[in-house]
Amino acid sequence: MLKETLYTLMEENQINIAELSNVMSKMNTVDIADIFEDLSKEKTIQIYRLLPKNIAADVFSYIVPEKQQIIIEALTDLEIGKIMSELFVDDAVDFIEEMPAGVVTRVLKNTDAKKRTIINQILRYPEDSVGSIMTTEFVDLKEDITVQTAFEKIRKIGVNKETIYTCYVISHDRLLIGVISAKTLLLAEPHDKVGDIMDSHIIFTHTTDDQEELANQFRKYDLLSIPVVDKEQRLVGIVTIDDVIDIIEEENTEDFEKMAALNPSDDPYMRTGIFKQASNRIIWLLVLMLSATITGSIIAGFEDALSDLTILVTFFPLLMGTGGNAGSQASTLIIRGLALNEIKTNDLFKVLVRELSIGLICGAALGVVNFIRIYLTSGRDVMLSFTVTLSLMATVLLAKCVGCLLPLGAKKLKLDPAIMAAPLITTIVDAASLSVFFTIAKIFLLKNL
Amino acid sequence: MLKETLYTLMEENQINIAELSNVMSKMNTVDIADIFEDLSKEKTIQIYRLLPKNIAADVFSYIVPEKQQIIIEALTDLEIGKIMSELFVDDAVDFIEEMPAGVVTRVLKNTDAKKRTIINQILRYPEDSVGSIMTTEFVDLKEDITVQTAFEKIRKIGVNKETIYTCYVISHDRLLIGVISAKTLLLAEPHDKVGDIMDSHIIFTHTTDDQEELANQFRKYDLLSIPVVDKEQRLVGIVTIDDVIDIIEEENTEDFEKMAALNPSDDPYMRTGIFKQASNRIIWLLVLMLSATITGSIIAGFEDALSDLTILVTFFPLLMGTGGNAGSQASTLIIRGLALNEIKTNDLFKVLVRELSIGLICGAALGVVNFIRIYLTSGRDVMLSFTVTLSLMATVLLAKCVGCLLPLGAKKLKLDPAIMAAPLITTIVDAASLSVFFTIAKIFLLKNL
Repeated sequence: MLKETLYTLMEENQINIAELSNVMSKMNTVDIADIFEDLSKEKTIQIYRLLPKNIAADVFSYIVPEKQQIIIEALTDLEIGKIMSELFVDDAVDFIEEMPAGVVTRVLKNTDAKKRTIINQILRYPEDSVGSIMTTEFVDLKEDITVQTAFEKIRKIGVNKETIYTCYVISHDRLLIGVISAKTLLLAEPHDKVGDIMDSHIIFTHTTDDQEELANQFRKYDLLSIPVVDKEQRLVGIVTIDDVIDIIEEENTEDFEKMAALNPSDDPYMRTGIFKQASNRIIWLLVLMLSATITGSIIAGFEDALSDLTILVTFFPLLMGTGGNAGSQASTLIIRGLALNEIKTNDLFKVLVRELSIGLICGAALGVVNFIRIYLTSGRDVMLSFTVTLSLMATVLLAKCVGCLLPLGAKKLKLDPAIMAAPLITTIVDAASLSVFFTIAKIFLLKNL
Repeated sequence: MLKETLYTLMEENQINIAELSNVMSKMNTVDIADIFEDLSKEKTIQIYRLLPKNIAADVFSYIVPEKQQIIIEALTDLEIGKIMSELFVDDAVDFIEEMPAGVVTRVLKNTDAKKRTIINQILRYPEDSVGSIMTTEFVDLKEDITVQTAFEKIRKIGVNKETIYTCYVISHDRLLIGVISAKTLLLAEPHDKVGDIMDSHIIFTHTTDDQEELANQFRKYDLLSIPVVDKEQRLVGIVTIDDVIDIIEEENTEDFEKMAALNPSDDPYMRTGIFKQASNRIIWLLVLMLSATITGSIIAGFEDALSDLTILVTFFPLLMGTGGNAGSQASTLIIRGLALNEIKTNDLFKVLVRELSIGLICGAALGVVNFIRIYLTSGRDVMLSFTVTLSLMATVLLAKCVGCLLPLGAKKLKLDPAIMAAPLITTIVDAASLSVFFTIAKIFLLKNL
């Protein structure tokens, strides 16, 4: 409701500033930022200038990149400097990564030297590394201070830190030696030494580690933040859980895309250009289209048989479809299990036995239904019903094997298992199932012609 | 390394208790719990009894259900009571949900009356509701107390609360009126009133809301916990972010499964029985197999044409495969966009225009490659190359339309869009693309015979 009111207020020609500020003060900053998505260029600048000073930078960090750029281009150097000094390092990096080079130069020129150095360092880490998403705003405590001194430090510097709920204990040469939660500090006595009550079972990560592993660590250990160390085990940053949730969703989106034969892309659907979208799709479509010609030539090799018995062709969709579905069921479960660390590559043999058993049960169930249907609709042709059913069962079994072996094989070769999903499996199983079908048909049907 | 040492120590016949305790004290409780997965029944009980008292309940909450049951069955009523008194309500509910009825009765009998009532209430909420995963261990503060009094309360009761980092401010009739973070409290003056410094922009949820929406709220507003209210807006519980991460992964797994024609299941792959797995797969395989007979009968309807021109059959895999892939690319992006709230149902027209444009570009690119390939391999047969290429382009365009309309339509009808994924789209596009192919072939090829 507040959002609608705000929206109406903004669209008026003569903006009622008092009323607008009043409504905004009742709203969450994320919701205020949402409004900018639909505003015109003029309104964007006008409204941004009307934001209460204490929330302007916070709102800015949640605005969509296109509108961030419009705002930055309209602001003075001084105003840009103010935003940059208030943004958390990780939000500043996110924002800068989305801006064109000209804007970046102007933004960095107006950032104070110390923050600029840190931002530049983080920008240099590889895209999927932990370093590229960490923030440097954390509370570090020396091990020999008391709880009381720790609180004094938190009160003094805490307001500018991304989290104060987990503090990091470091030695005099900045090596990470422990963590201590605000809860532990609050429940401790003022004169307790930090080093005595800290937790020295530290779960940590390296700047160069992959982000995907990070998500599994947060999930496994129920973390709120994780310390990041460099090669010398010195504490250089932290990653907080809000960013990890974004990573989890990005990694999942990437898997969904790869599993549907798409080049993964970070951009939301509605904000990606048509040509970019098309190019993300064409490559795999081409590769798979050309692979389908293999299946085509298998069919061509049996053209004689087909002209004798064109009815065989009517079972192609049944066999190819069921094979593809059975295979992608298996591959999806394996890919997902590998991503969540529920399946390990050395489970290969166990997984294969499972899939073969499941394939036998599914194949048998489908076979019975299929036999009855063909028998009844084909004028009680037992040999035809039998041929198709046997081919179907062999296809299901084969599809389950391919569906589990390919993702596990990919993982073993350190490739992304997500590529071994429905589209590729379907193409492989198509060719295999038709070969099986023709072979079985030759034995049982064609010799009886 | 510690894990391996521990494992070796546990497997010895004569366990060295001192050494074992020493290693455990250096380990994270989650890692200790991991060890139980591979232990025999006897070792499980033996080792559980050796756990340091202060971490036993915490370790217990992370142990896999099968081993939890073995432990509970070996413990005395008194010991069960101790575990239950130390477990957080949400962990207790998770554990009870996995136990057989006999064990549940015994566990609840040994739980104190107040906690038992709460557990029973939570167990009654529907499976996917917010109520079923909330915990009741939160810090609530009255609005008229001072910051100093608030800290005294947190210090007194905080040790048993799942989080103290967000406290909830309630009126005298327990209505939720604000939130206040530990950070705000720490940075405030001791005599400030909680009601004056609290944040009254509350993001909250209802006990009966769907868990899926919850994940989007956490993601959007960067929350660490969310308050849960009942129908009368009274604060009854909270959900913390560690549980939300599990929900996100579960919802994603569910979508992956639905999109691969699987009945969704909460159980990890390696811990689901073969028959359960098979039954999760058979229903959709059957439905899709029977749908494929429609495509089969479309082919049968054109049997005359096919016996004249069997070469047409060799292009079935090409058309069906490409159509299926093009359609599932579109449907995957739409389903994912809907799940992340990046696409709204009233974007239907915009999405359709996008997909048609993308379909035209992809179709044209594939068409060129396809024409050249067929022209060169078919002995320069222009009409055949043209017929297949035109059919291919029509198929891609059609697949993109079906791929975006079906998930959006499902969402509009309040069905789960994830069902409208690759397997179903492929089956529909198969039938459509062959119909188009036969129609075009009749016009351009068969009249020239």
